[in-house]
Formats: sequence, structure tokens, C-alpha cells
Amino acid sequence: MRDAPILLTPGPLTTTARTRQAMLMDWGSWDADFNTTTASVCEQLLGIVQASASHCCVPLQGSGTFAVEAAIATLVPREGKVLVLINGAYGERLAKICQVLGRRFTPVRSDEVRPTCAAEVDRLLADDPTLTHVALIHCETSTGILNPLVDIAEVVAAHGRGLIIDAMSSFGALPIDARQVRFEALIAASGKCLEGVPGMGFVLAEKHALSAAAGNAQSLVLDLHDQYQYLARTGQWRFTPPTHVVAALHAALEQYQQEGGLAARHARYQENCRILLEGMATLGLRSFLPSACQAPIIVTFHAPRDARFQFKDFYERVKAKGFILYPGKLTEVETFRVGCIGAVGPTQMHAAVDAVAQALRDMHVVDI
Amino acid sequence: MRDAPILLTPGPLTTTARTRQAMLMDWGSWDADFNTTTASVCEQLLGIVQASASHCCVPLQGSGTFAVEAAIATLVPREGKVLVLINGAYGERLAKICQVLGRRFTPVRSDEVRPTCAAEVDRLLADDPTLTHVALIHCETSTGILNPLVDIAEVVAAHGRGLIIDAMSSFGALPIDARQVRFEALIAASGKCLEGVPGMGFVLAEKHALSAAAGNAQSLVLDLHDQYQYLARTGQWRFTPPTHVVAALHAALEQYQQEGGLAARHARYQENCRILLEGMATLGLRSFLPSACQAPIIVTFHAPRDARFQFKDFYERVKAKGFILYPGKLTEVETFRVGCIGAVGPTQMHAAVDAVAQALRDMHVVDI
Repeated sequence: MRDAPILLTPGPLTTTARTRQAMLMDWGSWDADFNTTTASVCEQLLGIVQASASHCCVPLQGSGTFAVEAAIATLVPREGKVLVLINGAYGERLAKICQVLGRRFTPVRSDEVRPTCAAEVDRLLADDPTLTHVALIHCETSTGILNPLVDIAEVVAAHGRGLIIDAMSSFGALPIDARQVRFEALIAASGKCLEGVPGMGFVLAEKHALSAAAGNAQSLVLDLHDQYQYLARTGQWRFTPPTHVVAALHAALEQYQQEGGLAARHARYQENCRILLEGMATLGLRSFLPSACQAPIIVTFHAPRDARFQFKDFYERVKAKGFILYPGKLTEVETFRVGCIGAVGPTQMHAAVDAVAQALRDMHVVDI
Repeated sequence: MRDAPILLTPGPLTTTARTRQAMLMDWGSWDADFNTTTASVCEQLLGIVQASASHCCVPLQGSGTFAVEAAIATLVPREGKVLVLINGAYGERLAKICQVLGRRFTPVRSDEVRPTCAAEVDRLLADDPTLTHVALIHCETSTGILNPLVDIAEVVAAHGRGLIIDAMSSFGALPIDARQVRFEALIAASGKCLEGVPGMGFVLAEKHALSAAAGNAQSLVLDLHDQYQYLARTGQWRFTPPTHVVAALHAALEQYQQEGGLAARHARYQENCRILLEGMATLGLRSFLPSACQAPIIVTFHAPRDARFQFKDFYERVKAKGFILYPGKLTEVETFRVGCIGAVGPTQMHAAVDAVAQALRDMHVVDI
């Protein structure tokens, strides 16, 4: 097997050998051993945000977006209405989901370099009593911006509406405490900051909201109410689970706890991010976001002005040196992105900066 | 790592070490290397049923049922109507999907020991011109029965309706030739007769039907039209793919071709099934289905009459000897099931029969 490049991408990302080796065994999805694994995964996921008393964990097959759609389809009643807070591509996706599902929604767009404003949410909720829910991206990976979850949650709770948090790229690395941050649903996936492999998402759903949600979904497979009822009754997934992905997540969570849980993971990613930002700055590469709202998850950099810089060429050169970067996702500004997450530390981040420096030199890019 | 039991279940099933080892590497889902893997998988899946000229392959995250729902949601127009042919639990699931999606449907139930009757389908289609589609389970794993696909496809084609085939547990092992069997969609998954790991399904969709299907789905993630458009345009999956599952399927397909493709896989499963049926018969265990409609996929056995036979106890004893069986799925008759599929051959099947014999002796079960 050839040496795999390090993935500096927002997921799938680089996992440990131990996590991948957990996939070397086959599991019967009906068997008690596998049910134990599922139960342990769910329990740990709830524990990470102190939600064991208030929420249920509903695992779902598919990518994170499957879980986001399932959460909206299940928890927002057909006559509900969602205030969708948008400052990037994943916020736009929330709006698209509401639209396709036929749920009424009000999109609120703000600038990609500015976090969503809690005071504006307050005003909008006061103005429109028909809004039943607010949907928010915690860390918007299209730029890497961190939205003020605590402030927004407080406003939403004060208005008595339901909060749906897409915490896809923050869960497990950025602190969220369900005892303080009130939410109806929080959604994330296996292949992000928990450092599992991709293939399943999960929704931490507030218990009362979930049990009141029967019949909302216009989908069999995305109905989280039914998914949870079946799991609670049998200990099994309602439809065939991605057994190896679940086993890998279980192994990844073991390592997560051994590393020191959220505090340790947060600290490692922050250090990765600091090394990246400092190293790239010495090369003249400017990050897109003000540092105050930069989450230590993924960093967007302005592409060099130099005409000799072509992203595809740059990508291939950096890849040849062992690192996979990520293209930009902004329509108006030429950018590229570098992730700080995954089973990587200072050594890899320094080496990644060196690889970028060397690639730019080889491309004769001088006007940065 | 402890020795894993052999899974004699209808999927997840036992895979080869080589297939599982393909998951020891991380892949960037945006990277050209991974796109090549996806393209190769899709091309091979079409090739297995000679559908490369007529159909597109649309891979989908999630279990097989996700792909079944996606096929119905995408290909049956909102004003369409589906004739659902039911002789087991998976047929019932097709009806449930239509109901939840709000598609009109006519369920036709027949006895679980009798294959669906093509003449009856003919009559029903003649009687109701508003039926736009027919949905059928090829091999119904709740019993193991094989339905007469070729005859039914002929009738459906003669009436000019669309055929949707759930070939979950037959694809790759039982012959289907798209040049003779006309279908609008054929659905299967990674973790069945192709001997990959579970985590993705796929739909082979007739090209014209798929391109005419824009806007049918009331789901973002299950919209196969959009899923395919994005894949065709970019070479990438629309949302994060289960990279390791895809890599495992790619490795499993390599081994499938090396084994000799469908003919060889079919022959191996038939031999597995023969050994199982003969061996169990010598123990006095009777199979549920007449042999004429028994597919070499999974066999349902009547549970012994003896009061000392308890499935849970039996299951644990056989598991301790290295084999995982499957519970029955019939409501009126006490049964259990044993799969013939997966990376197993004569040695494992003989040993499984021995394990069953020993377990029954240990339980003092005499009245079989």
C-alpha cells in the first residue's frame, strides 16, 4: 500500500491507524456485541456535550447532510417555520433543505466575514411569532468562521423557539454544554473532529421534542422518531448500519477520551491552527477571516495574486509532498483552504507549511 | 483482536481480509484518486448487468433502503402510481415507502411461499391504466424466495410501465441482463453479494427516466437526479462519501472479477446452499420454501418443535462455535434463517452444519 497523504481537509480527514484497524473485523448488525458498540457510541456522544439527561442520540446512516435533513424533516412540524441564519455555503444548504422539504423558512443572509448577530435574531423572532425554529451553522466551514452559539441560543430560548444546530465541523472540538446552551437538535458526523471515518451522522435530539415528532417526516429512512423508537426498543439500528464505520467511531472515541476529551482536542487543534496561521503569514499568505472569528477547524487563505499561481498545479505539488489541501468555496474571492483537524499535530502542520513554501517556490510565485 | 465469527446472515456478511484491508487508508473525497475509484466502481456495477449503454449508476450514502426510497422518490412522479408486489417484509417496506412519500400505490399481497405471479401483474396493469410503475423484490430475504423477474419485466414492458427492482440480495449473484430485462431502476447495496462492507447503496437508473426526474424528490439528500448530475459534472459525490466503504467495495469488485464474475459467484453460492440444505436435512431440519423457488441466498428453516429449542439459546451456542445465524422474519411460523452468501465456501458451510448439530445435541433437542 502506498503512503497515504495527510488530509488537511474538513473531513474526511486523517485518522489514526488504530481507528482504521477497528474496521478489520466484520460485525453482525443483529448481534449483541454490535448493539453494545452502538450503545456505547451514543452514550459517549451525549456525554461530550453534557446532554445525557436532556437528549437522545439518534445515529443515522449516510453523510452529515443526511442527518441535517433528517433533523429538520423530523423536528420541524409540517406547519412549522424556520429562521435560517446564513453566512456561507452550509447555511445556504439549510435553506435549500427547508425549501425541498416544503417547510416554510425565512433566510437571513449576512456577510461571510461576519458572525451571525444574536441581536438581529432577537429582533427577527420578536417580529415574526410564526417562526417555530432557528437553524444555525456553528462553524461555517466554507470560510472557517465561528458563529456565536451561546448568545444565539440564549435569544432563541428566551423566545421559546427550537434551536437546530449544525455542529458538523465543531462537535467534539469546540465546547458546547447542553445544560447552558438549550437546543432541540444538534447534528454532527463520524468523520470530523471525532476523527472517525465518514459514513454516519447523528442527531442529539431533545427528548420531548423527539417524542412529539411522530409523523412529521415525509421520508421513511430519514424519520428520526422511528429510527430512535426502533433503537430504544431493540438496541439495533432500524436499517442496516455501516458496521465498520460504527466500529471505527467507537475506536476513535476511545482515543478521544484517552487524549483528554474535548479540552485536549480543542487545545491540539488550536495549536495546529496557530502553527498554520503563523507559518503561512511568514510566506506572505493572508488568511481571509479576522482572527476574532476564526475557528481552529479550517482556515481560508487568499490565493496569491501572482498569475503563475494556479490552484490545480499548487494542489498537485503540495499533494506530491504528502498533503491534501482543499479548494476555496467563495464565489467572489480567489481562496484555498487548509484544515487544522484530524489525527495531526505540530510536526505535520510545520511540514505542511514547508510543503506550501516549496510548492510556491517551484511555481515561481513571488507576488503573494 | 479476537477471532470474528462467520456471518451467515443476509448482510452485513463475511468479507475477505483483502476487502477490509482496503479500508486501512484515508482518502480525500475531493481528490482525483478517489474520483477514479468511484468511477471504476460505477462502471463495474453497470457491467455486471450489461447496463452500461442504457443506464447510469447513481451511488448513494446509507443502507440499501436509503437507495430504494431514493429511487422511488426520484423516479416516480408525484402524480405517479405504483403497483407494489408483496410476498414478504421487504415488499411491505416498498409499500411503506410509497405511503410515507405520498405516492399513490396499489399493494398486491401474495403468500410468502409463492412467487409473485406475472399473469396477475398483467391483469392488474390492464385493469388500471393510472399505474405508472411496478415495484418488485427480486429475492425476498424474509423467506429467501426468488420472484420471476424475467416474466414480470416482460409484462411490465409490454404495458409500457416503469419497473423498479429491489435486487438488494440478488445483485451480483443471480443473473440479470438489462438488454433482456427492461427496468427503470435496479437497486442494490455494497454489503450483500458483492461482498463489500455496508454503508452505501446504488441505483442503476435508466438514462431517459433519470434525466426526466428533476424535481420529483421531496428530499435534498435522496434526490438521485441531483446526485447524478453532480457526479457527472465533477466526478465527485454530491455530499461526503463513505470513503472507506467505497474503497472496500472497489477491492471487493476486483476480487469478484478475479473469481470469475457473476457465473462463479452464483455457482459458489449455489454450492453453499446445497451443502446447507442437505446437511440440515440430515439433522431433520426442514426448509420453509419449496426448492423450486428457493434462491441460493438465504434459507429459512422451520424451528424444531421440541420445547427445549429456544432460538436465543441456540443462537448463542452456534455463535460460540463461530457462526452467526439470523432470526426468522415470519409472523405466523417459528423459523430461523441461515445465509449462503459472503466470503464463505464449502468448508465453512459444512462446519456451520456441524455447529448446528452440536448445538441441538447440547440442548437435548430431539423432536425436530
